Amino acid sequence: MTFFKKDDDKLRNMANAIRFLCVDMIEKSKSGHPGMPLGMADVATVLFSKYIKLCPKAPRWFDRDRFVLSAGHGSTLLYSLFYLMGYKDITLEDLQNFRQLGSKTAGHPEYGHLGGIDITTGPLGQGLASAVGMALAERIIAGKFGSDVCDHYTYVMNGDGCLMEGISEEAISLAGHWKLNKLIVFWDNNNITIDGTVDSASSTDQIKRFKAHGWNTISINGHNYAEIDKAIRQAQKSSRPTLIACKTTIGWGAPTKAGTCKCHGSPLGSEEVAAMRKNLKWKSAPFEIPSEILQAWRDAGRRNKKEYYDWDMRAKNKGREFLDYITNELPKNWDAELNAFKQQAVKEGLKVATRKASELCLEKIVPHIPQIVGGSADLAASNLTKVKGMQNITAENYCGNNIAYGIREHAMGAIMNGMALHGGVIPYGGTFFVFSDYLRPAIRLGALMGIRTIYVLTHDSIGVGEDGPTHQPVEHLASFRSMPNVLMFRPCDVVETAEAWQLALESEDSPSLLALTRQALPMLRTHTKENLSARGGYIISDVKKGKKRRATIIATGSEVSLAVEAQSKLRKEGIEVAVVSMPCTELFDRQDSLYQEEVLGSCLRVAVEAGAKFGWEKYVGSNGKIIGMDSFGASGPGEELFKFFRITADEIIDTIKESLT
Amino acid sequence: MTFFKKDDDKLRNMANAIRFLCVDMIEKSKSGHPGMPLGMADVATVLFSKYIKLCPKAPRWFDRDRFVLSAGHGSTLLYSLFYLMGYKDITLEDLQNFRQLGSKTAGHPEYGHLGGIDITTGPLGQGLASAVGMALAERIIAGKFGSDVCDHYTYVMNGDGCLMEGISEEAISLAGHWKLNKLIVFWDNNNITIDGTVDSASSTDQIKRFKAHGWNTISINGHNYAEIDKAIRQAQKSSRPTLIACKTTIGWGAPTKAGTCKCHGSPLGSEEVAAMRKNLKWKSAPFEIPSEILQAWRDAGRRNKKEYYDWDMRAKNKGREFLDYITNELPKNWDAELNAFKQQAVKEGLKVATRKASELCLEKIVPHIPQIVGGSADLAASNLTKVKGMQNITAENYCGNNIAYGIREHAMGAIMNGMALHGGVIPYGGTFFVFSDYLRPAIRLGALMGIRTIYVLTHDSIGVGEDGPTHQPVEHLASFRSMPNVLMFRPCDVVETAEAWQLALESEDSPSLLALTRQALPMLRTHTKENLSARGGYIISDVKKGKKRRATIIATGSEVSLAVEAQSKLRKEGIEVAVVSMPCTELFDRQDSLYQEEVLGSCLRVAVEAGAKFGWEKYVGSNGKIIGMDSFGASGPGEELFKFFRITADEIIDTIKESLT
Repeated sequence: MTFFKKDDDKLRNMANAIRFLCVDMIEKSKSGHPGMPLGMADVATVLFSKYIKLCPKAPRWFDRDRFVLSAGHGSTLLYSLFYLMGYKDITLEDLQNFRQLGSKTAGHPEYGHLGGIDITTGPLGQGLASAVGMALAERIIAGKFGSDVCDHYTYVMNGDGCLMEGISEEAISLAGHWKLNKLIVFWDNNNITIDGTVDSASSTDQIKRFKAHGWNTISINGHNYAEIDKAIRQAQKSSRPTLIACKTTIGWGAPTKAGTCKCHGSPLGSEEVAAMRKNLKWKSAPFEIPSEILQAWRDAGRRNKKEYYDWDMRAKNKGREFLDYITNELPKNWDAELNAFKQQAVKEGLKVATRKASELCLEKIVPHIPQIVGGSADLAASNLTKVKGMQNITAENYCGNNIAYGIREHAMGAIMNGMALHGGVIPYGGTFFVFSDYLRPAIRLGALMGIRTIYVLTHDSIGVGEDGPTHQPVEHLASFRSMPNVLMFRPCDVVETAEAWQLALESEDSPSLLALTRQALPMLRTHTKENLSARGGYIISDVKKGKKRRATIIATGSEVSLAVEAQSKLRKEGIEVAVVSMPCTELFDRQDSLYQEEVLGSCLRVAVEAGAKFGWEKYVGSNGKIIGMDSFGASGPGEELFKFFRITADEIIDTIKESLT
Repeated sequence: MTFFKKDDDKLRNMANAIRFLCVDMIEKSKSGHPGMPLGMADVATVLFSKYIKLCPKAPRWFDRDRFVLSAGHGSTLLYSLFYLMGYKDITLEDLQNFRQLGSKTAGHPEYGHLGGIDITTGPLGQGLASAVGMALAERIIAGKFGSDVCDHYTYVMNGDGCLMEGISEEAISLAGHWKLNKLIVFWDNNNITIDGTVDSASSTDQIKRFKAHGWNTISINGHNYAEIDKAIRQAQKSSRPTLIACKTTIGWGAPTKAGTCKCHGSPLGSEEVAAMRKNLKWKSAPFEIPSEILQAWRDAGRRNKKEYYDWDMRAKNKGREFLDYITNELPKNWDAELNAFKQQAVKEGLKVATRKASELCLEKIVPHIPQIVGGSADLAASNLTKVKGMQNITAENYCGNNIAYGIREHAMGAIMNGMALHGGVIPYGGTFFVFSDYLRPAIRLGALMGIRTIYVLTHDSIGVGEDGPTHQPVEHLASFRSMPNVLMFRPCDVVETAEAWQLALESEDSPSLLALTRQALPMLRTHTKENLSARGGYIISDVKKGKKRRATIIATGSEVSLAVEAQSKLRKEGIEVAVVSMPCTELFDRQDSLYQEEVLGSCLRVAVEAGAKFGWEKYVGSNGKIIGMDSFGASGPGEELFKFFRITADEIIDTIKESLT
């Protein structure tokens, strides 16, 4: 295919339609980022009008190409494209309401606001890393079901910011390792960041860098349609992931601000916009697109209609298994074996670390949920995430169900997000709880998007022992409890661990975090029929029948057994207390107040947790007591640390006796 | 210099002395990581016996070479070296107490435990990134005071883990950009990680990668003394930072476990150790070092004695200014101008965003504290961190006092840690508060080490507005309040912002975080003599004299003005309430309970904060009320968002009236 002048003119008009919609949106809302969309409109036009596989009639088409605007501040680019291509859920009015409260066209693209948005972006680097997850999910599912139902590209657009963020390194390294050849990244190489030119903060040769990770790289002029076209075609044929470095001018078309950081994050202003209209000979009023150009875009939007219908037929022919698979439906009775295991465990009085309990649960779960893809950030042997029969996913065989992420927690989190968003994968990933700090931004995005990702976070307290305070979580439970839409579980034994897994797998709209011990814990539960953890907190060991409750000990994880020990010793002294296990405060908060009061009791309440005390006042009240940590941990044998930090049954007993007198 | 067999023998013996001390420590404590020290003992021997500039008699010698064991799990390597070289604060008994509670020889090296430890390491990648900060600090101070008093190398040892972590990318990119030629990194290239071989999770060509960032690279056999020697000499002469890729065998010397992940994180076991003794012909009992070898090490320890004394003389000749400088002493009356500014601001009723207030404060601070080095992660224009007269630090001119970190929050935090640890620099750095998540692991390490770093975290709530929930912090205040040893400030006006800066600069043992608004806030304070923020919380607006306090509104930052507005409206209805500003809960918690009770009052308490409610129960008690966020934010104009999320004066009024009836 060769390009003629006429074709170029058409493309330029189509690109300018994007440009003016973007500028008009930003001017109207008096807020936004024009620089990126103006600079990348030409690349976007070639990609969206000729190559990308999308169907506006079926925005969630499973086999569509994924598009990740990793430079999420350029959201107007995406909204313009959706409108121009004829997506039904976006109107001119939506464009005019850009960045207004309640509008679909938020400041940064938000997953769920519009059918065409594949992912929420904005925090730099996240999109690029999640795109690696999407591209991997595509390969996994293609491997399992065939390329007749799963065969699409994942396209990314990012700027320098995404490439400077550390997470990009973890992600591109894995993409190169996995040879994700259907991943194509457009780098908006405009040499401008918020504070000035890129070279004032960077001397990195990005091409060499990507090559070092085994990528295919192409450098083009991002305003030359023939070069863009050729690059995409070459990238599509590559056996490795491709970086297309697009040399662009930020704010292209803005007569005085183009090429400067002035057009990055603020409206151009009416004067500059008027001059830009003149400059680009654009005669239409704001939000008006000449019908011929709109028609060209709508035609582009219809390009893949037949392909979609053909795919739909093929997908239906694959049968229910495939359709359930891609919609992440859990198979019926998926947890039958897990339930049987719980009963058996109670019978045996199984005493293991909850990380081990998690492994035993996974042995009963993984064979029954085909969409599961587990993994760990190089701690599989400690997190116990890779169970019998799990196969590593490699460039040679995408059909496995376990990922060796290497020492890359942050990318692991973002890749899990990407796989969950893609569909057909239910991801879990492990690391030490203390290193959840490394992937916190990815968990936050998952929580904001409301997607199902499961984190296996072992070594959950000073119980870590000798590795010392750098490896001992303290504030982590509190820090995640304060994050919206996250289920933070800390189970106390095998049964609660199994319950946490059940809840996590069934929580389609929330990330779930399982904080698990390194050290062995006794079996405390006898009851397995109802999933008691679903209540968040419950009485795990009550006062003797007919006796008055003098106090309630509220504990989580490894401290529940201390509470039960204290309860039994106090009983010998004639003091009856109840023990509440609180594996998930978020779920407890969702219960009605009657239940909450019944569980917590109108009496002295003492919370015990080998973590920061912060936040427990909510449950113990003004007169309650909290036994926990005020400082970082220390290096030494775990049991000694519990004594040193006074998180013991004796401390509970003393506290209660002191408070009751 | 050429090497002869004899020299090799001597070095091998010295290296084996390290090896057996490490193994003996780990066997005795039944816990630890032998693989790395055994693999890197040869490199360490050449470096420490011939090149590194250290003086065991003066472990904190300002101009010593810095040594960062970024692979902190190899801590026994460091402890052995300190003992062998004759550091006085470590004895054989300390080695025998490795990983025991209260011992100086913690599981991972902990800053402050031993004079020779330059930094706490363990969380991978942090050490490497902080070393960049140390090497930069060296250049800054050499630039200011001359190479006669500041002229040293920063050496790093790290494994594959550090290089896989994203933070490494941000750090090596900056090191290359800044041409930090006195930074020398030894990569323990042993192809083994916890879960197996590196190539199962990585195909990265690290040499090419470092070259892409402008590094000098050298590849050697890490067990060949001549090669190690030559590489160090070559690196020392380089005009760029150097990566020395040391091909090593993990667990070198262990007959069956060497070269496998089995020796990474567990004791070798008595059988393997016995075989290793035989294998290396090591006849000494555990913890015994043949006197000749010990002597060789002690001689090495004395190598730089004269150099130290000469330096000491030169440093004294530089006078008080230099000595105060390198010990991070704040100049006398450093805040006189700041105090005058506070008074003036009150007089004028200055109404500005607290980020702007911070900028105004910095204008009065920066000229008076020569050690200050500011910066931002590409948001200087938003964080308002770069004030008039500040010069960027560049490879061409290290004498500036501002750093353009680029879009690299995580490295910024770790580099700030490194500069603070080095001494002679008091670092501050800015980003959006929501992106504090990206650098959380660095803040945690700073808090654990107890060092002075200051974070300027602007755009601190839904007040961010149109950028939406990806850019609006919600849980961040709570998440840092739960972290030990962090001062989390949220000032309400210009005066409190100035007070927060004063407290932050004077808090030598804690990182301080300043959460600052994007939007303008009224001046609320009239009193400027006492630093009221030092109390953490105080009554900023009391009830009318002689009137009974019906309620206390506790607020922080932008919500204090809402509280004051509510107070005044309630007063018109005859309801007298006091307003407490709580700019720093951590400092409030340190006050005596009498003061706390007096401030909070024995009445209805209502907390108001445009962030997660989590944690406020502590201050409002069981009958109190909390006005805050239960979810993520949204995209829209800031004022509208406050109304939408019901964080308004009217909401406070309604809540109080409802609760009082």
